[in-house]
Amino acid sequence: MAASYYIGVDIGGTNMRCAVIDGNHKLLSRLERPTLAQEGYDSVLARLNAEVDEVIAQSGVARKDVLAVGVGVPGMVDQKTGLIHTLTNMPGWHEVPLGEVFRQRTGIPTFVENDANCAGWGEYRAGAGAGCRNLAMVTLGTGVGGAFVLDGKLYVGHDGAAGEIGHICIEYGGRPCQCGARGCVEAYASANSVVRRFREMVAEGWLTSVTGVDTGEVTCKDIFDAAAAGDPLARHVADRTAVYIGMLINTLSEALNPERCIIFGGMSRAGTWFFDKIREGCDRGNKHIGPERVQIVPASLGPDAGLIGAAEYARGCVEKG
Amino acid sequence: MAASYYIGVDIGGTNMRCAVIDGNHKLLSRLERPTLAQEGYDSVLARLNAEVDEVIAQSGVARKDVLAVGVGVPGMVDQKTGLIHTLTNMPGWHEVPLGEVFRQRTGIPTFVENDANCAGWGEYRAGAGAGCRNLAMVTLGTGVGGAFVLDGKLYVGHDGAAGEIGHICIEYGGRPCQCGARGCVEAYASANSVVRRFREMVAEGWLTSVTGVDTGEVTCKDIFDAAAAGDPLARHVADRTAVYIGMLINTLSEALNPERCIIFGGMSRAGTWFFDKIREGCDRGNKHIGPERVQIVPASLGPDAGLIGAAEYARGCVEKG
Repeated sequence: MAASYYIGVDIGGTNMRCAVIDGNHKLLSRLERPTLAQEGYDSVLARLNAEVDEVIAQSGVARKDVLAVGVGVPGMVDQKTGLIHTLTNMPGWHEVPLGEVFRQRTGIPTFVENDANCAGWGEYRAGAGAGCRNLAMVTLGTGVGGAFVLDGKLYVGHDGAAGEIGHICIEYGGRPCQCGARGCVEAYASANSVVRRFREMVAEGWLTSVTGVDTGEVTCKDIFDAAAAGDPLARHVADRTAVYIGMLINTLSEALNPERCIIFGGMSRAGTWFFDKIREGCDRGNKHIGPERVQIVPASLGPDAGLIGAAEYARGCVEKG
Repeated sequence: MAASYYIGVDIGGTNMRCAVIDGNHKLLSRLERPTLAQEGYDSVLARLNAEVDEVIAQSGVARKDVLAVGVGVPGMVDQKTGLIHTLTNMPGWHEVPLGEVFRQRTGIPTFVENDANCAGWGEYRAGAGAGCRNLAMVTLGTGVGGAFVLDGKLYVGHDGAAGEIGHICIEYGGRPCQCGARGCVEAYASANSVVRRFREMVAEGWLTSVTGVDTGEVTCKDIFDAAAAGDPLARHVADRTAVYIGMLINTLSEALNPERCIIFGGMSRAGTWFFDKIREGCDRGNKHIGPERVQIVPASLGPDAGLIGAAEYARGCVEKG
């Protein structure tokens, strides 16, 4: 059997990562460079091209043995054509036919997908979702997003926008969300929202051992670290966050009956106390569904999920022809 | 090409319907009999068998030209084996291998599916969902249920329980639902809940032209008829019902990005004012999704959707082998 390798690319607002993987999704080489998004499309693309050339050279793999390139991007994509409609926080990336641009330069078939979908697909193929045909992923970062693998396939929806689960309403008329609506789970459970809720409580006079609150330096990780160390206010805020996430998972379970729900992002490393609280939030006391109905687990691939998922996604695209 | 016909069966708590359809989902014959569920499994099955024999005879179709039987049932089913786990309000139907029982008696391959899923599949194949690969159906009846067609396939979830959308929470800690939880959309927008909300407002002193409220004879249809005729209280209750349904559709759209959402059941005949209100409820003011993003339409097959869907489902099963 001929050697077969795949390239995964993960373009983020901060860093661009790429890797060469083999048929067992093992990374042979990996590079990570600053995106410098503010320099605009031409500059980012030129540096990305150089990075891809370098990661192939480092892997020792012949270019002809690379069967496909998968690119994950933070935004809306037409999966069929590889056309990027627009990218969040990346100026100049409007209606860019990135799949075609890459393919013409490298001669390698290239497929473009949303980055959350790539991460979900990576966990399904090689991580915490392995062996599970119906899977929901909840991504907790600056915002809240998600991805679905349904009946063993990545599900992207009518125009590629499925998985916008951060904007599911958990409290009608509740906290304002940056999307313009109120009560979205993102307004409660994103890293930014955790910091905001924590700062509000400190401003109301609640005491905490966490420093840097008044100077605005406190991060979501600081709050979760303090929660794990026993700070009561930090723990309260983290526990409530878990309950909000559980409410979201309950909704997804009612609708989609997934076998497993994977929590992805920094908060997923918070430990078992956090997952126990998520399960509490997921249990609304209804008879036909509950926390025992859906497995709730942390992601296992870490920040490389998107990279591996992009490569695996491209592999799937060429294999099905 | 050989003649090919299919039988659809729809077992409900009140009536059992069956029909013979041709390859263009045209009904050649149709029968509807009382289920008499309280007589138990053996009696219901014997009468169902007779009904199926009769509907074949009436159609004039030779039994050998019937390629498959599809049966829709109100409960949880193992689609692969045709095993019914349990049926709502039908005593004696526990762990019944109905697919096998039917196949042995008739010699025709038989497939069993949940009735809401059958109705969704019927609307997809022959009704308001035709031509649309990603579809959500919201069923408004005694309870609230649903079905999904995703990427052109019926989606049933990990253990066949997908589409339990009546128990999606729209108000945390809100109205008690018969499932044991609080705030489920079913506790607001089912026919029973509409009547309950209406009666509560009358008890609080609101005036209405609707009669039979104090004797408990008022139905959801009475309230919707009065709403259409201009009764302010009935209209208020119907409008709020539409908003709750819109909130549910917003959630489904965020998660699944369907092209179209079909409203099924008695309330779907309420007219454009009701659908306009549903669209209002669906519009939470967020930038990336809104009522223009998903088409919200009434079902078009009426009570035969489940019958046609069951037959079409069975047809799909034998065609894919």
